[in-house]
Amino acid sequence: MRSVIISVGDELLRGEITNSNASYICQQLRKIGLNIQKVITVGDDLTAISELVKAEIKNNDLVLVTGGLGPTADDVTLTAVAAGTNSRLQTSMEQWKHIQTIFQQRQIQLRPENKRQAQYLGQPVPNTNGLALGSWLDNQHSVVIVLPGPPVELQAMIDLEVSPRLKDYFHLQQSLLAQSLHFLGRPESLLMTDLAPVCHDFPQFSVTSYVKPTDITIRVVSKDEHANPQMMDKLCAQIIAKEQPYYLGSGDHFDLATTVVKLLKQRGNKITAAESLTGGMFQSTICSVPGASNVFDGGFVTYAASAKEKLIGVPVDVVDQNGVVSAQTAAAMAEGCRRKMNVEVGLGFTGVAGPDALEGHPAGTVWLGMSRAGHPTQTKQLRLPSNYSRQQIRQLAVQYGLQMVYTALQK
Amino acid sequence: MRSVIISVGDELLRGEITNSNASYICQQLRKIGLNIQKVITVGDDLTAISELVKAEIKNNDLVLVTGGLGPTADDVTLTAVAAGTNSRLQTSMEQWKHIQTIFQQRQIQLRPENKRQAQYLGQPVPNTNGLALGSWLDNQHSVVIVLPGPPVELQAMIDLEVSPRLKDYFHLQQSLLAQSLHFLGRPESLLMTDLAPVCHDFPQFSVTSYVKPTDITIRVVSKDEHANPQMMDKLCAQIIAKEQPYYLGSGDHFDLATTVVKLLKQRGNKITAAESLTGGMFQSTICSVPGASNVFDGGFVTYAASAKEKLIGVPVDVVDQNGVVSAQTAAAMAEGCRRKMNVEVGLGFTGVAGPDALEGHPAGTVWLGMSRAGHPTQTKQLRLPSNYSRQQIRQLAVQYGLQMVYTALQK
Repeated sequence: MRSVIISVGDELLRGEITNSNASYICQQLRKIGLNIQKVITVGDDLTAISELVKAEIKNNDLVLVTGGLGPTADDVTLTAVAAGTNSRLQTSMEQWKHIQTIFQQRQIQLRPENKRQAQYLGQPVPNTNGLALGSWLDNQHSVVIVLPGPPVELQAMIDLEVSPRLKDYFHLQQSLLAQSLHFLGRPESLLMTDLAPVCHDFPQFSVTSYVKPTDITIRVVSKDEHANPQMMDKLCAQIIAKEQPYYLGSGDHFDLATTVVKLLKQRGNKITAAESLTGGMFQSTICSVPGASNVFDGGFVTYAASAKEKLIGVPVDVVDQNGVVSAQTAAAMAEGCRRKMNVEVGLGFTGVAGPDALEGHPAGTVWLGMSRAGHPTQTKQLRLPSNYSRQQIRQLAVQYGLQMVYTALQK
Repeated sequence: MRSVIISVGDELLRGEITNSNASYICQQLRKIGLNIQKVITVGDDLTAISELVKAEIKNNDLVLVTGGLGPTADDVTLTAVAAGTNSRLQTSMEQWKHIQTIFQQRQIQLRPENKRQAQYLGQPVPNTNGLALGSWLDNQHSVVIVLPGPPVELQAMIDLEVSPRLKDYFHLQQSLLAQSLHFLGRPESLLMTDLAPVCHDFPQFSVTSYVKPTDITIRVVSKDEHANPQMMDKLCAQIIAKEQPYYLGSGDHFDLATTVVKLLKQRGNKITAAESLTGGMFQSTICSVPGASNVFDGGFVTYAASAKEKLIGVPVDVVDQNGVVSAQTAAAMAEGCRRKMNVEVGLGFTGVAGPDALEGHPAGTVWLGMSRAGHPTQTKQLRLPSNYSRQQIRQLAVQYGLQMVYTALQK
């Protein structure tokens, strides 16, 4: 079968955002064995969209159109698809009521144009994260699907509505096997060199690596739909065994903070932190996990040396004698915050986020400290590339902090 | 003039990487007044690429093809473009010698297929960051440009070679005028309805909106290169005046935290915060700005009610009588942290990040408190959409907190 994505949006053609929706759709539909042959991006232009849809439905079994379903005048996608497919716009009174309720709740004045988000073609596709309905239109020889552009809305609709329906509709029997494995602390090139002999023994699978902001992801995918799931599991197990010290976890939606919160909860432990270069990002990452309140009461951002002393009692001497960017300061921060909050695990983050050097240490120099009830305090130095951005350095410091807790709690 | 980008690569259609090259090209060429009308992504497929090129050169003045210029068998772009344009592959002996030298230096064995990276069509385009030559081909009525896929190579070639040559070739006199204006606190549809009469008076400009995670961006762009910069300024000033209470700032790289840090520094003020639902994200956002240490010593994450009392002295009574999610608690948090850190500005964040409701308040209910030296404490309630994700709600709470400080400091 042949499938095409049509991405609509002037902001895409102005280069203001990258087309992450197209990547997401390609990735997710690939899992049900449906490959996209072409992605076409066009602007919010009624004629351009309708002509494109008209042309593409002739050559494709699936035409998936995204973006341009907002309530404003430049959102013309649905009208354009209606013209291109010769079909009629319909309005869901149920959705219109829902939009009215939402506006009432938020105490915002409703305008007539808001009703446009209750329109659809063919059958409506529910949108749990937003107001604009999606559309599923059987159009003689092809299916045309229209989805809104905001990623949080689109992704949920792909996962909950579109993927399952496409699987049924096109009788997609078997999908490719795919698994994502996440690692931290070993450079990509060394990781792949280590793994070359392992991969060589499993020619039915492709093994590729991607550098992500907070880990290196190894993606294992079967080359066709005849691959054996047990062989896949065996290959993944061998990869994990080979790189055990760096392994974080597996899965497309893997999140290290979620794993750490779960481990803490299982052990009935609570965590706190004193953060300097990360400025609260570690605690914010812990709080991004629903149910974080089970394992986290609160903590400290101790950016200035004075705050380190005042809030968590880091002795001035420790900082004076060793410097702010030191194992001793990181350890004293970890111990100080843990003592103050009276919990089982305390972390200290200190280092140079950049762009400038500090105390003679280049940007990317980070010390982590971990204090645990009944254990000696640990410290760890990171030497992150100094050409990394301030954000990258801070984000990686947080991730290494999570890894430190993860490794300790697993033992 | 009409221009199209053809992006080549199976990895794009598998969704393994996003098409950041297309965004970069759109962004950079827009600066010289050249707009892209369409981006088409196809796989490493000889027939698909050559047919696409053949079709697109008929309707476009510029066809820019990227990716698939590597030395391996699946890199077929140059052969495909040659077929699609009916032109002959040539080999640069100079580049071939260069490739041989590089391989000798790196002590890697040279293969015959490496010679393919010295091939080009029309005229070669130098590649300072890689081995594959680019191509510039005058093809009767259109120009066809072929560039390699690795971003570091492509970006340098666009900036150093392609942009300047296109400017000459198409006699691009003047670039389009463009400005981004950022707003927060008024829904997109109301904003655009408000602005309709203003925009009506400036028909030479297009005014579009899009919803970003932390603001609504209004983009003003001249419709052609004949627009008057003074008219542009006048239009922007009118838009800002109309929506003053919601206006945050302007520019493509605008960042509200940077503005707030600058304002605080100008006034010699320091800031702190006590964060509940945001869990440290506000302070982390302040610390994302280089030089934040001028205005921020540290602060508190007070997730549990016990931490609110213990760390910043929020009276138990206040929480008991009014609830955690209340104006009174937000105010007491703001006052408590400001007193504790002894600084000029203190913020309190409390609310429901979701997914579950809290104390009968739906997710998205947020109270902000702001305590300032010499001013009465202010509070503000947000009613963010309850279908927003936990992250969206927390991120918006931070942004509204920044806006609260920004508005106060501007007066």
